[in-house]
Amino acid sequence: MTNWLVTEYLNKMTLEEKVAQLLQLAVPFFKGAKDSGQITGPMKSLGITEEQIDNAGSVLGLAGAEEVLAVQKAHLANNRLGIPLLIMADIVHGFKTIFPVPLAIGCSWDLELAEKSAEIAAREAAVSGIHVTFAPMVDLVRDPRWGRVMESTGEDPYLNSLFAQAFVRGFQGDDLRNERDRVAACVKHFAAYGLAEGGRDYNTVDLSELKLRESYLPGYKAALDAGAEMVMTSFNTLDGIPATGNRKLMRKLLREEWGFDGVLISDWGAVKELIPHGVAEDEREAALKALQAGVDIEMMTSCYVHYLPELVAEGVIEEKLVDEAVLRILELKEKMGLFEQPLRGADPELERTVVYSSEHRAVSRELAAKSCVLLKNDGLLPLGRQQRVALIGPFADSGDILGPWSWTGSQETAARLGAAMQAASAEASNVTLAAGCGIDTFEKALAQEAAAAAEAADVLVLALGEASEMSGEAGSRSDIRLPQAQLELLRRMKQLGKPLAVVLFNGRPLDLSGVLDEADAVLEAWFPGSEGGLAIADLLYGNVNPSGKLTMSFPYSTGQIPVYYNSFNTGRPQGAPDAQVRYVSQYLDVPNEPLLPFGYGLSYTTFAYGQPKLSSATLTAEQPLQVSVAVTNTGSTAGTEIVQLYIRDMAGEVVRPLKELKAFSRVELAPGESRTISFEINEAMLRYYHSDLSFGSDPGAFKLMIGGSSRDVQEADFRLV
Amino acid sequence: MTNWLVTEYLNKMTLEEKVAQLLQLAVPFFKGAKDSGQITGPMKSLGITEEQIDNAGSVLGLAGAEEVLAVQKAHLANNRLGIPLLIMADIVHGFKTIFPVPLAIGCSWDLELAEKSAEIAAREAAVSGIHVTFAPMVDLVRDPRWGRVMESTGEDPYLNSLFAQAFVRGFQGDDLRNERDRVAACVKHFAAYGLAEGGRDYNTVDLSELKLRESYLPGYKAALDAGAEMVMTSFNTLDGIPATGNRKLMRKLLREEWGFDGVLISDWGAVKELIPHGVAEDEREAALKALQAGVDIEMMTSCYVHYLPELVAEGVIEEKLVDEAVLRILELKEKMGLFEQPLRGADPELERTVVYSSEHRAVSRELAAKSCVLLKNDGLLPLGRQQRVALIGPFADSGDILGPWSWTGSQETAARLGAAMQAASAEASNVTLAAGCGIDTFEKALAQEAAAAAEAADVLVLALGEASEMSGEAGSRSDIRLPQAQLELLRRMKQLGKPLAVVLFNGRPLDLSGVLDEADAVLEAWFPGSEGGLAIADLLYGNVNPSGKLTMSFPYSTGQIPVYYNSFNTGRPQGAPDAQVRYVSQYLDVPNEPLLPFGYGLSYTTFAYGQPKLSSATLTAEQPLQVSVAVTNTGSTAGTEIVQLYIRDMAGEVVRPLKELKAFSRVELAPGESRTISFEINEAMLRYYHSDLSFGSDPGAFKLMIGGSSRDVQEADFRLV
Repeated sequence: MTNWLVTEYLNKMTLEEKVAQLLQLAVPFFKGAKDSGQITGPMKSLGITEEQIDNAGSVLGLAGAEEVLAVQKAHLANNRLGIPLLIMADIVHGFKTIFPVPLAIGCSWDLELAEKSAEIAAREAAVSGIHVTFAPMVDLVRDPRWGRVMESTGEDPYLNSLFAQAFVRGFQGDDLRNERDRVAACVKHFAAYGLAEGGRDYNTVDLSELKLRESYLPGYKAALDAGAEMVMTSFNTLDGIPATGNRKLMRKLLREEWGFDGVLISDWGAVKELIPHGVAEDEREAALKALQAGVDIEMMTSCYVHYLPELVAEGVIEEKLVDEAVLRILELKEKMGLFEQPLRGADPELERTVVYSSEHRAVSRELAAKSCVLLKNDGLLPLGRQQRVALIGPFADSGDILGPWSWTGSQETAARLGAAMQAASAEASNVTLAAGCGIDTFEKALAQEAAAAAEAADVLVLALGEASEMSGEAGSRSDIRLPQAQLELLRRMKQLGKPLAVVLFNGRPLDLSGVLDEADAVLEAWFPGSEGGLAIADLLYGNVNPSGKLTMSFPYSTGQIPVYYNSFNTGRPQGAPDAQVRYVSQYLDVPNEPLLPFGYGLSYTTFAYGQPKLSSATLTAEQPLQVSVAVTNTGSTAGTEIVQLYIRDMAGEVVRPLKELKAFSRVELAPGESRTISFEINEAMLRYYHSDLSFGSDPGAFKLMIGGSSRDVQEADFRLV
Repeated sequence: MTNWLVTEYLNKMTLEEKVAQLLQLAVPFFKGAKDSGQITGPMKSLGITEEQIDNAGSVLGLAGAEEVLAVQKAHLANNRLGIPLLIMADIVHGFKTIFPVPLAIGCSWDLELAEKSAEIAAREAAVSGIHVTFAPMVDLVRDPRWGRVMESTGEDPYLNSLFAQAFVRGFQGDDLRNERDRVAACVKHFAAYGLAEGGRDYNTVDLSELKLRESYLPGYKAALDAGAEMVMTSFNTLDGIPATGNRKLMRKLLREEWGFDGVLISDWGAVKELIPHGVAEDEREAALKALQAGVDIEMMTSCYVHYLPELVAEGVIEEKLVDEAVLRILELKEKMGLFEQPLRGADPELERTVVYSSEHRAVSRELAAKSCVLLKNDGLLPLGRQQRVALIGPFADSGDILGPWSWTGSQETAARLGAAMQAASAEASNVTLAAGCGIDTFEKALAQEAAAAAEAADVLVLALGEASEMSGEAGSRSDIRLPQAQLELLRRMKQLGKPLAVVLFNGRPLDLSGVLDEADAVLEAWFPGSEGGLAIADLLYGNVNPSGKLTMSFPYSTGQIPVYYNSFNTGRPQGAPDAQVRYVSQYLDVPNEPLLPFGYGLSYTTFAYGQPKLSSATLTAEQPLQVSVAVTNTGSTAGTEIVQLYIRDMAGEVVRPLKELKAFSRVELAPGESRTISFEINEAMLRYYHSDLSFGSDPGAFKLMIGGSSRDVQEADFRLV
């Protein structure tokens, strides 16, 4: 049901204007942009005319109320019909108030706070003039070599789906016309981008449709169910065809089967990339294939604008196909109130008070503390406020803690660990800082300086990690250990014989060889965002008790990749009663299990689980069952436990995962406190995709598992009848 | 068209006899077997009766004419209808005369000699009483962590197909009734077993049907086209269903689409493994699913024998399904002449002269020499006959050079490297031997002994590698470097400052960190078989010039896996004219290319390639084109070059590989000699699977590449019109 206004615009548009509406370019192309003087080169290389830019439908990477106003006003002045630009940008984990990277947010298991982080990002972006964010990224990830794992919430389809919905709700709220609070969400990257072969970004993806539906699609679907307005194509192939030209995926599945009628945008340059992919001979064929697949907006290449007019004129494609794409874009503009308020949101005044407010930063600090995962603690943490600490390492005093996709953030004002620890200690002089080495460079002088700092300390805290550009887009690493220089620093510091904690800043699960065994405590801080240092200091000094749990497995080594908790049993599992010594599915040199599994994370207290109690041994489609379990804080500190419920289908029509997360609960417990946690298990939770791709449950035996990690669970059996 | 005799047998059989005919058990179960006294345990655990064994259709792992005669005679005496046993065994790369492992044979690119090796294996096996060999294994392999890569000829579907056919021809010849020369071939493992996730044996396999058909199926299909009588199921899942219970794969594709009407056998225990896989609740369901999928013989479990009778009695399955399976088995027995000559082949007399004959061993020596690949040579090789050589390492004097799947071979009589080099040198005393270390154990005393040996030498030759059990079935390694002990030995020997060559014995491509850069020369010898030492000595001393070329890529590290030459371009390839510094498909820390690519291998001479000359710039379905290239031996030694022709389809309906091997030629050239090599390129070579799974060619642009490795090629363009 197309809005009448939108139809009216469409009717007035020439074919050239329509086609330009499908074009999205970066800021420098536009009049009013600060650095628009520099566009001659790219404009020439894209072969785009000034008129086409005046008719373009959207811009990406624009932020800041004043510049937005300037660009939009200039555009309205030059656009014949006065159609405003849609202003889009990558606001992935915060605008100026940067939150932890999404993989870290995942580890909080805190959906409300995740939603709030998106809400704050939306508010800051909205008053800065942005209409659409290219988020959430909900790609399922199982290969830590891939740099973009930091953009995902992890390896579980169910948890990813919940976070996808939380982010969409946070960005969009109930009413997109709420100009000062909301931006439209663009879920990405459709589909299965996270399965890039060898963990090498942009690489080939290949999988069965069964696996696609079972594991990879739920995240996108959940985001759309939550109302995400847009979808972005992924760079990879699927069934041999790049997503951006894949009719089966886009036209048939996304549009027809799922009924998505919002805007589908290509990723940066992805329409033209159909040529190097080798499925289009030239730009004309690329334009044809992308439009036929259902891509509405072409980002940063000019195949549409150059070739759609002649393809229509020659009758190769119907103008109707172009019209539909234009309509979807105009509809979104209408939905956001742009025709009435083309300058919506952008407010230099408000921007100064809303953006990076102390209230927003406080939320970032809370989320960062909840996102950190305590990987090991031999009693060293929390630190005492009187302890003399040598904080050593390239992240001791670094602002590079925002992580990839934080271009609107400020490393300069980010809360660094060193200063935060000095503030948290009884006296600032208790904490001395030393770089020790560079991210990837070892200097004897720096190491000696670190040793000198260590000399006077009771405890060493090593702040180590990856520079942010070592993960993120195009940040694939074949070796996911800490850089050698930092491992060498750790070795040397270890030799001093003092208690040693490691705080890790990184965008992926690492191979912790040379770290986990050597350190007395390890805190995984990821890229914690603007308030990172403060949040980590809160944890290190015990002002906050760590509660994060991993949502992506840490492998023993790259040789074990992919390793993830929800894998299959195989026909020759390890540890079966009749298992042979040799002829089982295993490596000769490492366990099958990851070093640190999904759901794993320590606290300064300990929790004990009772036996799960079931309301019934069976379950029917009409009659769910209840399971309850007593969880007790057995330590002397208050703490939050993330109680996880997993289910295993013992025999399916197709093979079923060893465990699947089906529910969880965050439980705060005082020392000694015990609480009974209940979950409902219903038939819908037992459904899965069959070999004919039908979705449903089958009667039979199931096992439920409840615990504080996917490895450490209490079991009970039940049947679906 | 079923043979009348076979039908007659079937008509006489009771249902119990029929079902027992589908049972295959190992030797100890059978009367007449040497160690049949030991069967009480397994017989009990399988719950099999003496009567069922008397009615069993086949035995596996039986070899040796006398024992075969004893078992077969006992069986005939106890089988009501006198139906002889089919005797099957894993004769993978030789019977007693062991040839190099198949991955090594692949590197010879010598189809004739490969066929001869299978012919010899068949002859030795036949006179020893074997009827069927579980070979060839033709699984495409791209993950060197998987231990069974040694059983495959490599990563290329085309080359694997040619070897598959050569092996089948060698085993089967023209007439299976040729009892003293031939055995039936059982191609395995159907299908895509080589894609085990993480390179962990028996692990999940998941891929699109497009990739299955394009890359994984051709090898099996080629073997069947060459007449392979049997097919073995693989242990893995496909589309979520284990191959052994996969109706789509077996019943629909193998039987209906391909028309295979031979015997389909499960791998060891694979029918019962449907239970741990989680697609069968119990043995009854496992039996049902396997039979419905089309599996005729159940190997080493008893689901069929226990549950098929009741499944038939209850009408769950038609007896016809059982009859068909029995008929296929009886047909094969008839085809092999077993009803007329139940004791066929087995001949203790002949066995003594045929098996391990010097003639056979000479072929093994030739093939081993052709299978070795010279990976590096900074002028150190060949060795001079007068040079004093210290041969150091755990393989200096080891019989463990036969490789996995050589149970009928003899390590004791295998030609060891040390003795062979002493014989090849001018004087035996020129070559001193020292172990240096164990396979995986470092002992200072051994290292010192090695250093002492090195002291007196002009040249060090280090014989290093993997014990055979480190590859093969269930021999997966997450770390594919040489064991640390051997790397340490190499480091120490390197410090002596003498010229140093390394000879590698191993079953997979290795991560050569710590080897390739350190050594002056590296010879990849794989597991070279019975005559291995002699063949290597032939090469080291220059009596034979190395000519082998890798058929599986050597990665830089496990972090780069999978890496193979026939991959896709992606949308953001490295090195494109408009490629950015960062945003291309790459790792931050290693190249995209493997360390040593498919087709790579050095010689003691050098070869130069001219520009390819095309008979025409275009090609039609009716009119092939010819391409010729001048290849010149530019060194001073006679040598054999393997000239490789690759083609790239520049734009397809689906993405196409960067290169695909389409033809090759072994060319022997005297020093200075030049020869023009011609290849025909026809339309059939340009066909591929489209997204609708149709197979055909499309007009358009192609690139051909000719060279001495997949990395080092001369290019020319042509078009299919």
